[in-house]
Amino acid sequence: MSIPNHTLQVELRGGVEDRSYPIVIGRGLLADLGAFVPALDDVPVVLVTNDTVAPLYLPRVRAALGTERKVTEIILPDGEDQKDLTTASHIWQRALEDRHERRSMFMALGGGVVGDLTGFAAACFLRGARFIQLPTTLLAQVDSSVGGKTGVNHAMGKNLIGAFHQPEAVLIDLDTLESLPDREFAAGMAEVVKYGCICDPQFFDWLIEHTDALRGRDGAVVADAIARSCAIKAEVVAKDEREGGLRAILNYGHTFGHAIEQVMGYGNWLHGEAVACGMMIATRISASRGWVPDALVERLSDFLDAFGLPVAPPSEMSAQTFLDAMALDKKVDEGRIRYVLLDRLGRATLVNDVSCEEIAEAIA
Amino acid sequence: MSIPNHTLQVELRGGVEDRSYPIVIGRGLLADLGAFVPALDDVPVVLVTNDTVAPLYLPRVRAALGTERKVTEIILPDGEDQKDLTTASHIWQRALEDRHERRSMFMALGGGVVGDLTGFAAACFLRGARFIQLPTTLLAQVDSSVGGKTGVNHAMGKNLIGAFHQPEAVLIDLDTLESLPDREFAAGMAEVVKYGCICDPQFFDWLIEHTDALRGRDGAVVADAIARSCAIKAEVVAKDEREGGLRAILNYGHTFGHAIEQVMGYGNWLHGEAVACGMMIATRISASRGWVPDALVERLSDFLDAFGLPVAPPSEMSAQTFLDAMALDKKVDEGRIRYVLLDRLGRATLVNDVSCEEIAEAIA
Repeated sequence: MSIPNHTLQVELRGGVEDRSYPIVIGRGLLADLGAFVPALDDVPVVLVTNDTVAPLYLPRVRAALGTERKVTEIILPDGEDQKDLTTASHIWQRALEDRHERRSMFMALGGGVVGDLTGFAAACFLRGARFIQLPTTLLAQVDSSVGGKTGVNHAMGKNLIGAFHQPEAVLIDLDTLESLPDREFAAGMAEVVKYGCICDPQFFDWLIEHTDALRGRDGAVVADAIARSCAIKAEVVAKDEREGGLRAILNYGHTFGHAIEQVMGYGNWLHGEAVACGMMIATRISASRGWVPDALVERLSDFLDAFGLPVAPPSEMSAQTFLDAMALDKKVDEGRIRYVLLDRLGRATLVNDVSCEEIAEAIA
Repeated sequence: MSIPNHTLQVELRGGVEDRSYPIVIGRGLLADLGAFVPALDDVPVVLVTNDTVAPLYLPRVRAALGTERKVTEIILPDGEDQKDLTTASHIWQRALEDRHERRSMFMALGGGVVGDLTGFAAACFLRGARFIQLPTTLLAQVDSSVGGKTGVNHAMGKNLIGAFHQPEAVLIDLDTLESLPDREFAAGMAEVVKYGCICDPQFFDWLIEHTDALRGRDGAVVADAIARSCAIKAEVVAKDEREGGLRAILNYGHTFGHAIEQVMGYGNWLHGEAVACGMMIATRISASRGWVPDALVERLSDFLDAFGLPVAPPSEMSAQTFLDAMALDKKVDEGRIRYVLLDRLGRATLVNDVSCEEIAEAIA
């Protein structure tokens, strides 16, 4: 029997139906997933994972689904380059061959690539099939699996083709973190500390205090960090499901981060690594403007550095390189790049007046 | 100055924002479209059309958009075979190359293929861009442009990949019907009479009475027929945007019709022709069950026949051929094919117990 440590709810009551859904955090959830997914019954399943995750966790998910149910198993090669329309087409092909219907449940077992891709495939399958997220990386657990942003990359940039499509549940099985390489764990920690920066100064302080416990992957501390991160994201998403305004604060560090990923080639820098570096740039600009103390730059830098995360951009990227890459980003509004800065610790603000000189100074 | 004959509203108030939108019906609308589209201002436009429609109507749309605005013009080859992921990708590529943003307005100038494809492209572009429908065929005007169903075909069936994405306006310029070939006009008329069958016996009677005026494309009569059709569709969509139940009645004749299109190859039978034939099958089954009088079968048959629409399926299709093709349709529910029948004229009902013998008798 699995006992969840935390159960949160993403409240999405606007709309014809109540689309609210649970985020369950605990150990042993994958082996017992029927207990946490609404109305799974004998629903057919399209289960998408990758060849790194499959040997580790697929058997327990298959066992939990039982032997009577129709399950289409799709095991993709691991890697960001799978997150494209070609792979989405492959998923649709397989689901259609097995005659899945709109009521079929897509399941994403893996990290952000599997989650975003599977969610997008579900969103467009017969104009919208059900899906749940079974995130197995820290980054997916605290960020990409929650909130319904799905999509694939395009040659011209990340996540440019996609849909808002909410899952029916997010099951965060903490056991999956045991197999997560340190580099991936660190990348997730960048998104965790982001929530402190933009929304919750107490959480930021708590994270700094617990740096060693987090690095040591102390189970209870990690579970609390995940739960608080998900709670903040759920609250922001509930207020602004489709990124009309508030939700944009979740992109703290991401505008610069996406530029790094794009220039360096997707997958060379992990998303969380690029975000870590992007947050450092945004925090330095916030400090230069006198909005946050210089000490915050150091505290954040020390925290990220403790996990081996990069705190300076690649030396080949000039301020102009950043500007050129960011102009292609989704977060451009009427031709102006939209930046998220901190106007104090725990409060993010959107601006569009960051100068090339400010960026140059921040990356110097 | 264009003066609309009719302005209707699709009421979609469920949800965070009011997504209601106008359907404007009249002459000269394309040349004056800024007057009817909410907040078009200087918004950049991605304008999609095909090489049949472009020489006829593109110049007046371009003129209406002015010379200052960024307009990406995409002229596709005419034909159902364009309605696929490859063409959607091409639209995304062009829109990204021209650096369109989420606020850009996609415009679909053409028939159902252009409308469904462009709507889908807009739905997935940066997770959802704005779009409007400028339908130029009768079928698109009374059916596919209204209600937010968008999508592309898949090798395994029609419209299998798609999204619900509502336009911000539908402008039905009656002038465009002047260039519409008789066969296409007839195909649209099949959808028009469908609304009478499923929702409005007075409208059905009115259509039968006005058969000659409709065949002669009497402007005022055609405008009234379009307006009543759109009003019925708008009402059904307002009650059931995502086809949870009621909206399925709009598929009257479509389950059989899709089977014909699929078996005969998309584009060989026009969609409206296949629907005409499908309605005849569904009406014959309804009559065999004693739900509608046999006389209705004749009245409908005479009406469709007056437009040269097929009232019997292709001789090579047996009842089993239909069943095999329909099993692949989206309208399958827990493994059972869902049929729309009439339990009386003007009232549709969903059943899943139609036998192979009933189909055999209806197509005999």
